[in-house]
Amino acid sequence: MIHPDMATMLAFVLTDAVLADDLLELSLRQAVDGSFNRITVDRDTSTNDMVLLLAGGKAENQEITEGSSELEQFNSALNEIMLELAKMIVRDGEGATKLVRIQIEGAANDDDALVAASSVATSQLVKTAFFGADANWGRIIAAVGYSGAEVDPDQVSILFDDVTMVSKGLGLGSEQEAKASEILKKSEFTVTINLALGTGSAYYYTSDLSYEYVRINADYRT
Amino acid sequence: MIHPDMATMLAFVLTDAVLADDLLELSLRQAVDGSFNRITVDRDTSTNDMVLLLAGGKAENQEITEGSSELEQFNSALNEIMLELAKMIVRDGEGATKLVRIQIEGAANDDDALVAASSVATSQLVKTAFFGADANWGRIIAAVGYSGAEVDPDQVSILFDDVTMVSKGLGLGSEQEAKASEILKKSEFTVTINLALGTGSAYYYTSDLSYEYVRINADYRT
Repeated sequence: MIHPDMATMLAFVLTDAVLADDLLELSLRQAVDGSFNRITVDRDTSTNDMVLLLAGGKAENQEITEGSSELEQFNSALNEIMLELAKMIVRDGEGATKLVRIQIEGAANDDDALVAASSVATSQLVKTAFFGADANWGRIIAAVGYSGAEVDPDQVSILFDDVTMVSKGLGLGSEQEAKASEILKKSEFTVTINLALGTGSAYYYTSDLSYEYVRINADYRT
Repeated sequence: MIHPDMATMLAFVLTDAVLADDLLELSLRQAVDGSFNRITVDRDTSTNDMVLLLAGGKAENQEITEGSSELEQFNSALNEIMLELAKMIVRDGEGATKLVRIQIEGAANDDDALVAASSVATSQLVKTAFFGADANWGRIIAAVGYSGAEVDPDQVSILFDDVTMVSKGLGLGSEQEAKASEILKKSEFTVTINLALGTGSAYYYTSDLSYEYVRINADYRT
């Protein structure tokens, strides 16, 4: 820690389950990858992030082994808890008024989907549009475009929750935009971006960018 | 152009000098790399950026050739003009009240210097601190740290113009901080970050991040 106003995240997850150290570590790594590593408030990586998973063995179950359905159950529960914790961080983000899931579908592969999701989730223009409840799909397509992911603008579709705003590269006009704007006024919604190129998918959780973010980070000493 | 509120930059540079097409293209590429590709307001890459360099040959000089001192002079003038144009874009950036040069010195190599400069220049936490005239060197070191550039925190020095705020990883206390804060109140200043690892250097121009940025990009339709 080099300066006390820097964000520090400590997460502790406890389980009574019995399973081997190395399995526990694998479970933790995949859970972190799908939760704490899939959120952003301002793209400024903290200097001190830690997630601990502690297994006390109190459940006295038969040891959970690799490839078992018990391990699947365990991982599923772990993923759910850690994603919930991660989403709490975004909801509680500096000045955040909205929690937004960016869902990429149909990317050429999962890596492409992830860079596209991350690019949209960290775009200041997209995040200010969320704050202003503006269904500005041009900014979203632009952020996908400069992400480096393979994209054909004429194939892209964009939905705000279940409201289709863009279909195969074409904006659907003011009636759909009015519906989409209503979705953007909610405190939680999903933006689904379908690239229609393959089967790659990924998600990212982000917040909006508000006046309050600037106030907290510019005026916090006064 | 997929949405008319997206930034579009068109730059035209005209010269009367006589020089071959391929030399002109080389000159333009290196000049763009040191000017328009070294500025950021919000990291959102525009969909339509164009720089044209047109040589009319009216000067009727003997053709400028590769390796000549005339070419050096030409490039130097071109670089100066294009950097000035690029800086005007940042000064005119959405809500920008400050033009800040991020100067990395002593990086392991030039590539490392560039990723470090870009990381600091695009950090929302650094840019809000600039807006608040806060000499928050912790945020600067953190942005260098997560950039991927090789860095030894105990070797880093940071100056605001000629005011040393951090020397070999140590903050120099409240007296220097008061002086640094005065620098940060200026409309133009340089942050020099010396990594003391090698001879790599790079610069980036950035703005601060203000309430006005959020207003312009969230409320522009109302």
